[in-house]
Amino acid sequence: MTVSPFDHPLLSGLLGDEEAARHFSVDAEIAAMLDFERALAQAEAESGIIGTDAAAAIIPVLLSYKPDTARLRAGVAKDGVIVPELVRQLKAAVGAPHDAGVHFGATSQDVIDTGLVLRLRRLIEHLDLLLTENILRLVGLEERFGSRALTAMTRMQPAIPIQASDRVAVWRTPLQRHQQRLSEQSKGLLVVQFGGAAGTLEKLGDKGPAVRAALAAKLGLGDAPQWHNQRDALAEFAGLLSLITGSLGKFGQDVALMAQSGTEIKLSGGGGSSAMPHKQNPVKAEALVALARFNATQLSGMHQALVHEQERSGAAWTLEWLLLPQIAVATAAALRLAAELAGQIESLGH
Amino acid sequence: MTVSPFDHPLLSGLLGDEEAARHFSVDAEIAAMLDFERALAQAEAESGIIGTDAAAAIIPVLLSYKPDTARLRAGVAKDGVIVPELVRQLKAAVGAPHDAGVHFGATSQDVIDTGLVLRLRRLIEHLDLLLTENILRLVGLEERFGSRALTAMTRMQPAIPIQASDRVAVWRTPLQRHQQRLSEQSKGLLVVQFGGAAGTLEKLGDKGPAVRAALAAKLGLGDAPQWHNQRDALAEFAGLLSLITGSLGKFGQDVALMAQSGTEIKLSGGGGSSAMPHKQNPVKAEALVALARFNATQLSGMHQALVHEQERSGAAWTLEWLLLPQIAVATAAALRLAAELAGQIESLGH
Amino acid sequence: MTVSPFDHPLLSGLLGDEEAARHFSVDAEIAAMLDFERALAQAEAESGIIGTDAAAAIIPVLLSYKPDTARLRAGVAKDGVIVPELVRQLKAAVGAPHDAGVHFGATSQDVIDTGLVLRLRRLIEHLDLLLTENILRLVGLEERFGSRALTAMTRMQPAIPIQASDRVAVWRTPLQRHQQRLSEQSKGLLVVQFGGAAGTLEKLGDKGPAVRAALAAKLGLGDAPQWHNQRDALAEFAGLLSLITGSLGKFGQDVALMAQSGTEIKLSGGGGSSAMPHKQNPVKAEALVALARFNATQLSGMHQALVHEQERSGAAWTLEWLLLPQIAVATAAALRLAAELAGQIESLGH
Amino acid sequence: MTVSPFDHPLLSGLLGDEEAARHFSVDAEIAAMLDFERALAQAEAESGIIGTDAAAAIIPVLLSYKPDTARLRAGVAKDGVIVPELVRQLKAAVGAPHDAGVHFGATSQDVIDTGLVLRLRRLIEHLDLLLTENILRLVGLEERFGSRALTAMTRMQPAIPIQASDRVAVWRTPLQRHQQRLSEQSKGLLVVQFGGAAGTLEKLGDKGPAVRAALAAKLGLGDAPQWHNQRDALAEFAGLLSLITGSLGKFGQDVALMAQSGTEIKLSGGGGSSAMPHKQNPVKAEALVALARFNATQLSGMHQALVHEQERSGAAWTLEWLLLPQIAVATAAALRLAAELAGQIESLGH
Repeated sequence: MTVSPFDHPLLSGLLGDEEAARHFSVDAEIAAMLDFERALAQAEAESGIIGTDAAAAIIPVLLSYKPDTARLRAGVAKDGVIVPELVRQLKAAVGAPHDAGVHFGATSQDVIDTGLVLRLRRLIEHLDLLLTENILRLVGLEERFGSRALTAMTRMQPAIPIQASDRVAVWRTPLQRHQQRLSEQSKGLLVVQFGGAAGTLEKLGDKGPAVRAALAAKLGLGDAPQWHNQRDALAEFAGLLSLITGSLGKFGQDVALMAQSGTEIKLSGGGGSSAMPHKQNPVKAEALVALARFNATQLSGMHQALVHEQERSGAAWTLEWLLLPQIAVATAAALRLAAELAGQIESLGH
Repeated sequence: MTVSPFDHPLLSGLLGDEEAARHFSVDAEIAAMLDFERALAQAEAESGIIGTDAAAAIIPVLLSYKPDTARLRAGVAKDGVIVPELVRQLKAAVGAPHDAGVHFGATSQDVIDTGLVLRLRRLIEHLDLLLTENILRLVGLEERFGSRALTAMTRMQPAIPIQASDRVAVWRTPLQRHQQRLSEQSKGLLVVQFGGAAGTLEKLGDKGPAVRAALAAKLGLGDAPQWHNQRDALAEFAGLLSLITGSLGKFGQDVALMAQSGTEIKLSGGGGSSAMPHKQNPVKAEALVALARFNATQLSGMHQALVHEQERSGAAWTLEWLLLPQIAVATAAALRLAAELAGQIESLGH
Repeated sequence: MTVSPFDHPLLSGLLGDEEAARHFSVDAEIAAMLDFERALAQAEAESGIIGTDAAAAIIPVLLSYKPDTARLRAGVAKDGVIVPELVRQLKAAVGAPHDAGVHFGATSQDVIDTGLVLRLRRLIEHLDLLLTENILRLVGLEERFGSRALTAMTRMQPAIPIQASDRVAVWRTPLQRHQQRLSEQSKGLLVVQFGGAAGTLEKLGDKGPAVRAALAAKLGLGDAPQWHNQRDALAEFAGLLSLITGSLGKFGQDVALMAQSGTEIKLSGGGGSSAMPHKQNPVKAEALVALARFNATQLSGMHQALVHEQERSGAAWTLEWLLLPQIAVATAAALRLAAELAGQIESLGH
Repeated sequence: MTVSPFDHPLLSGLLGDEEAARHFSVDAEIAAMLDFERALAQAEAESGIIGTDAAAAIIPVLLSYKPDTARLRAGVAKDGVIVPELVRQLKAAVGAPHDAGVHFGATSQDVIDTGLVLRLRRLIEHLDLLLTENILRLVGLEERFGSRALTAMTRMQPAIPIQASDRVAVWRTPLQRHQQRLSEQSKGLLVVQFGGAAGTLEKLGDKGPAVRAALAAKLGLGDAPQWHNQRDALAEFAGLLSLITGSLGKFGQDVALMAQSGTEIKLSGGGGSSAMPHKQNPVKAEALVALARFNATQLSGMHQALVHEQERSGAAWTLEWLLLPQIAVATAAALRLAAELAGQIESLGH
């Protein structure tokens, strides 16, 4: 047990996902922030907001910049966000006279929210691949065992005979819907956030929308008006992630229930016990249930964070940081575990 | 205070919504169940599953049937669902020999889930109208006061000057997205549930899909394979309802914050105090925050209910009953209150 | 399905509890409020805050007063609380010159919070009796079946042989701890709330504490400084209720798991199915799981309501009303169902 | 942003607490597990369960043992818990013939749960000190500014004049109750877990209770029957932690509200903005609100985990690991921040 099992050097072997966690590392986070600042300098130079010489001075410095993380940590403790201290360092690195062009017209939330979106884009690609893998493995189970007999269990009581394919289809179908949802939600989610101090891009005069569009294009994101105090796309995305883990939790719960007597399912690679060497525990199935209930728990907080005061709520925004990365990694971990669990099913039905 | 303020004869004046609550009354519920059973008899007669004389005997009886509710209540206590006792009563009312055609091939969950969907269809129409009303009222505020000055508040501190329209647009824009989401989600949500004992329509032979499609058409719903143990559409819908109340909670929170000093907003019709007659409390604004946090709380349980064991989980299904109707009424109440609150804004900005 | 199953004329047969729900009815609520106002008049007359003739005029009127509930409903919609309109009606009923003595120095929250505590006292007595009944029934099961053999199930896999008493003791022991907690928490919970407009009893001069102590004594409650914006005792109590339903949910889950194969437990009175007459569904066991997950869900909101702004938060307070009565009734219902379920166990172990 | 801000090298500067986090590090966790295994060997040797020579061989090896963490990580991925692989390593390190005495009669959950309790004991000491520090600082504020005037705010509207001491007492009093609760809960929480494979200490014959008592005494914990599938003490403790952060969230919310206009409170050391150098953001106050809402969110999951199937639920147990450490660190962080925030209050009232 460490503060979060997703970061725990041992427990993350079960509950974590390295690829997803990588997108929430400090390195990935700062890289995304520097991507934002570089693209901003470029977009603003093209619009004449800052000079092309300023952009030419800024961009190479930011390309290779390694921040002083001890001072960033102290900055967060004081400012509540990384950006003021990071911008201070970036300006110092660029030096006079072009330091004034760094981060021009932007605010902390622009950098952090857009930086988050850039990393969610990669996360979504990862989740999409994992969904495909799960779907394929479940199709494989249907092909191998689908015509075998199972006893339907309704209200935890034996009901009538069904086929194994009936149960496996119930595991597979929601994942296909989730993949569709992931694709649809991406349009509204993967958009730039750029609003300046209070969402009005007040320092850019009438060029605000053009600079924002150019910034979005350079980052490969959609363009959209500021959404820094409208968090519905993020809460909706968290909801989708929890739908995914919920469906996988049902898969895990079903497998654990089937594995009780051992006659309807055969699993390879079950977990060992320190007290009972004969046991084969359905560890991955149980972890799927735990991750489903974890995400269902977290989701509530993401919706509490919708009550975002006025032009920027430090409290509601910080609450998201405490929740969303873990929801994301829990989802990736559950998808990884589910694919592995599907691979462990050596026999289904009879 | 009664068990639920939504049902409370006094508190529902503030926190309830009569139109939405009506769709969750016993009368509406039983009417929807009888709609299902009639349409089923008709669809099955057309497919030759039951005789046309059976349908001709069943349909008029069900059209006017008034169940013995005391026995329904006792039935629920024993069976966990209304349907077994209701079907018993319906069969008795139809009498031999056509009683065997009542509810043929269906199970309790088909009746209850489809009956719920029929009522959610009306609820969605109601919510859509309320969303439109809110959007129009906010557009009206933008037209009347949009060009006035406001001080942006970021992290609860005065930031820079903005226009009133900047803040109102932040209240309005998410509602437009929610309206779009409502329309999109309806396709997947407003579909029939018909699966029989364990989802396989085992009593209908190869006519299952045709009967289901005919049943759906008669009820004005989309056709879809059984989803009785795949609850993602319902959990997603609950999420959308909580997105709506979350956005309205932000509106309420903003209004309550602006009303503190009374210089940036003027509200008519504030609430009185039993101790301080001079006060004008922003009661509707506060209620919007309470309803937002209520729905954010409930949503977690809807996602817990995704872990639905095997072919039917009594526990997970019952949990939904404890949550979804209240989420729905809270949403309608919040939309009603928000429209009223928008109407109380007599002045904005300066 | 109605807005809340606890208020639903049919579903409350399974999920409700009449005795507990009675304490949250409008009648009980208004009776408790009138108890408060009468005791206040008496206490204030004894301290010379109001005249003894005023008290003599007020008390009999309040003893038999039946409020105009239509106007109370309209009052709630405007004021957010019942009390301002109720006090208006009470003053009118008392008439000049003694109407000024009604509700003197008190505020809405004093009436509502103390009125709630008066009803929680009766609820706690009810829960305590139900806990005792459960414990006795489980002791009975230990006596009848305790020495029989069961297979321990760890991580949902057969482990080693245990005795039936080992499993039953795990159901019983937490209930005994909960009963102890209920007794301990009552001291801090069952106290008067009396603070006036902002918690300082500013209208009572130096007699505030004495009046409050007398008021508490007359109501049979403990005396305590104002707690109207310190909600920890209520949130803690909600937590205890959720501990109770959580422990009962484990009992229900265990019974449902044992009932799957039917060899380790025999239950009488299982629920029937509309599609499969042969089934005996463990309906009460499932309902226990649903109620446990329901309360675990609600508890989050009670803790959100701890963030109670300044001297009184309309939003946080209203949120409690949406949650606590249902948590209370869910707990009573779960205790009732658990006792019934224990009574349905005809055989345990082998 | 990393997976958890509590582990994040930068964000933990604001949201984390080093001392609390240290108790959830892998090193602290393994040290506590080895403490358990050593004390067990000693207790079992004293009772004659294992030989004194076995204990003499085991204890020194465990005193200095450094596990192969790569293999522990792989073990967790397979077994769901660290212990089977850890015990394998310990046995190998002890070697024949005394390896059989390692972990004798115990199971993974004994080691992990007791190891957790050992670390919670230190956490509680830390929290208790932090509570004291907060109380003293608030007493200091009452002494310095208590007699100054404030305007009470009820329902976010100006109400009547109060003294600064009235508001500060509302911040302080709940913390004193929480300190009392911490002391009372410790008795039931800080107890050994020792039950063997299924809670019956089946390998120890009639010496089970004596060994358990001796084990508890050696570890400085209370003795108690097995509670491995009765999680009420842990859920109750999580509730207390959330009560603490809830009360501190109210403090933070009040400070942020007072700081809006800047006339009733003066804070030093506010946070800077990357866009508006003039701003002084109440960062610590906002973080307190975020941490309160975070813990309120997590608490729900701890109560879901009460539904712990049969003799051991892998799913429910794993869910706790995902929640409790973060609740604990969030609480310590909130206490640290609140003490700092109290220290930043340079003036209160007028």
